[in-house]
Amino acid sequence: MSYNLERAIAELDQIKADLFRKDFLLTWQKNDNELMSVFKIAEILKELHHRNITCKAFQTGIAVSNFRDNSTRTRFSFASACNLLGLNVQDLDEGKSQIAHGETVRETANMISFLTEVVGIRDDMFIGKGHTYMKEVASALNDGFKNGVLNQRPAVINLQCDLDHPTQTMADMLYIKNYFGGYSKLKGKKIAMTWAYSPSYGKPLSVPQGVIALMTRFGMKVALAYPKGYDLLPETIEIAKKHAKCSGGSFSVSNSMQDAFKDADVVYPKSWAPYHIMETRTQLVEKLDKKGLTELEKEALNENAKHKDWTCDETIMNTTARGSAEYLHCLPADISGVSCKEGEVSAKVFEKYRIGTYKEAGYKPFVIAAMILACSFKKPAAVLNNLLRKNEQRVSFK
Amino acid sequence: MSYNLERAIAELDQIKADLFRKDFLLTWQKNDNELMSVFKIAEILKELHHRNITCKAFQTGIAVSNFRDNSTRTRFSFASACNLLGLNVQDLDEGKSQIAHGETVRETANMISFLTEVVGIRDDMFIGKGHTYMKEVASALNDGFKNGVLNQRPAVINLQCDLDHPTQTMADMLYIKNYFGGYSKLKGKKIAMTWAYSPSYGKPLSVPQGVIALMTRFGMKVALAYPKGYDLLPETIEIAKKHAKCSGGSFSVSNSMQDAFKDADVVYPKSWAPYHIMETRTQLVEKLDKKGLTELEKEALNENAKHKDWTCDETIMNTTARGSAEYLHCLPADISGVSCKEGEVSAKVFEKYRIGTYKEAGYKPFVIAAMILACSFKKPAAVLNNLLRKNEQRVSFK
Amino acid sequence: MSYNLERAIAELDQIKADLFRKDFLLTWQKNDNELMSVFKIAEILKELHHRNITCKAFQTGIAVSNFRDNSTRTRFSFASACNLLGLNVQDLDEGKSQIAHGETVRETANMISFLTEVVGIRDDMFIGKGHTYMKEVASALNDGFKNGVLNQRPAVINLQCDLDHPTQTMADMLYIKNYFGGYSKLKGKKIAMTWAYSPSYGKPLSVPQGVIALMTRFGMKVALAYPKGYDLLPETIEIAKKHAKCSGGSFSVSNSMQDAFKDADVVYPKSWAPYHIMETRTQLVEKLDKKGLTELEKEALNENAKHKDWTCDETIMNTTARGSAEYLHCLPADISGVSCKEGEVSAKVFEKYRIGTYKEAGYKPFVIAAMILACSFKKPAAVLNNLLRKNEQRVSFK
Repeated sequence: MSYNLERAIAELDQIKADLFRKDFLLTWQKNDNELMSVFKIAEILKELHHRNITCKAFQTGIAVSNFRDNSTRTRFSFASACNLLGLNVQDLDEGKSQIAHGETVRETANMISFLTEVVGIRDDMFIGKGHTYMKEVASALNDGFKNGVLNQRPAVINLQCDLDHPTQTMADMLYIKNYFGGYSKLKGKKIAMTWAYSPSYGKPLSVPQGVIALMTRFGMKVALAYPKGYDLLPETIEIAKKHAKCSGGSFSVSNSMQDAFKDADVVYPKSWAPYHIMETRTQLVEKLDKKGLTELEKEALNENAKHKDWTCDETIMNTTARGSAEYLHCLPADISGVSCKEGEVSAKVFEKYRIGTYKEAGYKPFVIAAMILACSFKKPAAVLNNLLRKNEQRVSFK
Repeated sequence: MSYNLERAIAELDQIKADLFRKDFLLTWQKNDNELMSVFKIAEILKELHHRNITCKAFQTGIAVSNFRDNSTRTRFSFASACNLLGLNVQDLDEGKSQIAHGETVRETANMISFLTEVVGIRDDMFIGKGHTYMKEVASALNDGFKNGVLNQRPAVINLQCDLDHPTQTMADMLYIKNYFGGYSKLKGKKIAMTWAYSPSYGKPLSVPQGVIALMTRFGMKVALAYPKGYDLLPETIEIAKKHAKCSGGSFSVSNSMQDAFKDADVVYPKSWAPYHIMETRTQLVEKLDKKGLTELEKEALNENAKHKDWTCDETIMNTTARGSAEYLHCLPADISGVSCKEGEVSAKVFEKYRIGTYKEAGYKPFVIAAMILACSFKKPAAVLNNLLRKNEQRVSFK
Repeated sequence: MSYNLERAIAELDQIKADLFRKDFLLTWQKNDNELMSVFKIAEILKELHHRNITCKAFQTGIAVSNFRDNSTRTRFSFASACNLLGLNVQDLDEGKSQIAHGETVRETANMISFLTEVVGIRDDMFIGKGHTYMKEVASALNDGFKNGVLNQRPAVINLQCDLDHPTQTMADMLYIKNYFGGYSKLKGKKIAMTWAYSPSYGKPLSVPQGVIALMTRFGMKVALAYPKGYDLLPETIEIAKKHAKCSGGSFSVSNSMQDAFKDADVVYPKSWAPYHIMETRTQLVEKLDKKGLTELEKEALNENAKHKDWTCDETIMNTTARGSAEYLHCLPADISGVSCKEGEVSAKVFEKYRIGTYKEAGYKPFVIAAMILACSFKKPAAVLNNLLRKNEQRVSFK
């Protein structure tokens, strides 16, 4: 690799971004400079790690890992990112089913933050709750910092909420940017973000919502497709439309996987639950209505089963640009005949793109680390430059 | 803040304290110099953190976190303290309901300590057990160190037992000391440590016991009050009496919240379970008598409910000195109309003092770190002086 | 201690061993030089720790702790080893009963390894599964490293599988080597590896298998004894025979504890489950046959109960060499009248050797750290020499 670190840091230094002492919750709350700044930091950190240069911007400090939902991959990505920067992860486990609010959130946020530099939160299962909870935590930390309770303002990082999954979609973006050879190469490229059949139920909406909101900013032609009824949250559709208009790209919604895949340069076939189902689910969970939840699941799975033809196999891949669109997935994919009988993608297609999806995921720890760095330091370029000049071996004599 | 670090370290250096290779289990086992030494170290560490100076007295080392009871706040305080000093926390989870003893304790204590510098234990639910368990662990570590099994003698730190909660009460003390402007200003000040109504049951006795034992050492007038039957452990009452006599303060026990609050400079209204109930509970747990436990809980809650008038509202706060006593709580408080229907404190009173209680809690990580430092190093002042002179930025370029 | 660190490192430098970017799964896959290299590194690290010299070969990096089985001691040993070297442990908990395979293993291994330097796995409960699983993980990491998914190839360390328990047996070996005063002193010494009665069921076979496979390499006379039916895996018996032949030692199998103990210099009495029972158990677990499992347990315990006379008491100890063979155990032992009514060893015998068994266990963290170092660095001697020359105090001013 001939990545020029000095030049990359100099370029970063030229980007005017206002991320210091802010949070990273939704990509569409950040302007282009701010996103570019995070992308650039992520690539610099990835290269520093590759070159075995220590990236400890912190000598000590706590990183709170608050997963209100099971997760192995994102949990490890967050832990890896924090470790890379010198922070120590502590898990906050308030009980997975509990939806805390009000005084409890306000108080707990401060009680765990006396020596904390970042709070990573995953709360994606309840429509209307996840993002709201993150804002509550952020507001409690503002209150504590303003009132002298905290020496520092920890950044809140969204590790997936009901609206967006910024660490995933920004990793996806870095992957395809480098795949095509630069942001300018993305202009006019078609990406199909489509629903795909899965035998499981209740998959969150944040990935497709995040993808259409982000990819439309780069002049891409974003084709969203799903079976009737599998709508995304209306506000995210509006954002995608607006972004497409601004960037000179396009955004279309259809109920045809075929139309979306046709001539696509990138495809992202992935299951999700219809948003009205997720809303009903949230209400039933709040009422602790177990019977209702069982019925809802049954109903939803029956509905899913009507759309088994929404699958990414060789036939549909052949209709993409040059028959070889790049395939994206946030993993784990439901692979037909491998992880399930019938699923999102055929074994043959998945195997062809498997290593690619691993590399796509490989950007995630660095995107998370970049968000932490960008939110924690006034001049990230100076911090990175300092690390580069110190040139301390991360692993001795490797 | 114009805290003079050099002077504070010089003062610390003058205090003769014998804490090295000892444990910190009960404040009343430590003499005044020893407490003063821990207080001073805690304040120095807090200031070093505030000034972004690295406090890593350890380059590597394990800190065992042994919580035999659920806890978020103290667990984070301990983890934060350890991280500040450069130690890495490992959780020891032997099963929460299990009361280990004998060979198991002796062996496990050594098996987890080969590279361990500190063992933090919380075991507060069983009268007659928590402190005993900590002593067993300490004795096993002495045995291992003496016999060459361990290269170092890890300090045992009491993170709350059945008798005392030293990290909490010492944080409380630092808060009011600074609130009133020095230890000498505490002389003659009245503090009301009173029971208060809570709809939950089985709250430990260690906070009120620890408070009366500690505050009486500073010449304060300590007024303990609780409804008939809600006695504390008799030995802690005797300690408070003795301390009050020595320090020129006073210690009174009554069954009137009104009497205790009248003209008080500080109030600490907080629920606890009567000690005879806690004793019965311990016996029932040992016999695995579920039915007995359910009945005991019902009986105890019924008894609690007779004392709903023991609550800290504006009316009773108006009877304190200048109508504005300082309010303490170890958090979380049971706030009427917020976290419960009727509880320990009214929402209005709590909101007035909320930020204060957060700051009170903010001393805890530094008190814990101070205990670790005091027990681990022969000359803590030299260690701190070295950190100050090295002046390594904890967070780069912040 | 007058351990000569400079000389030890120079000696290490002379040993030709090919461990870099390999895994440490089974001692019998390693040649004598490779074992000697790990032993030497372990002793050097133990001495560096004793001398309070920092051993951070890594500035940052993740160590995955994958325990598919409950464990306190080995878990702490691994965590301590990683911390000593500067790595941060993250637990991977895929559900204890689940036997993952195929795509899930391949993908997860990569997803958790983007910034990972070592993966420690314990998977000892299922015959034919544990070692297989570790090989699957190792092969997935090869695939990821080769394809550029991972910047580094994390080493897989066996923390106990169905075949071997190398970190335990190598700790045992270091203990007796130092007890007798050198590897050469082990030649001709008799070690009795015998079954012993325990009231519990399902103890893994990896310790006795690992012991007979390792100790036979040092010219020892290894006497394996167990009641009829308690066979070990045949392949491990073959390995022990081969090793004994090569080293000029001997290997015998009998059904008499008396014969094995007679004139033994070292005894290792320890319970295990017959391998055919463990095989049946694995099949029942896979079929989720709870009733079958309950019946199997009952049957196995009944069988165990016929052999209560297989216990290590003073009478049998008196028949060993000079009546005072050295006693080994991987801990915790089932001690008659202490941890159970009747067990592997009498209280009197255990108490006599208790501190010895603690010291035996004390080698384990350093053996694990040595394996990590040996697998992670091309020239471990250079890394250790560098640490020694830097001479950074691990604990300030201690």
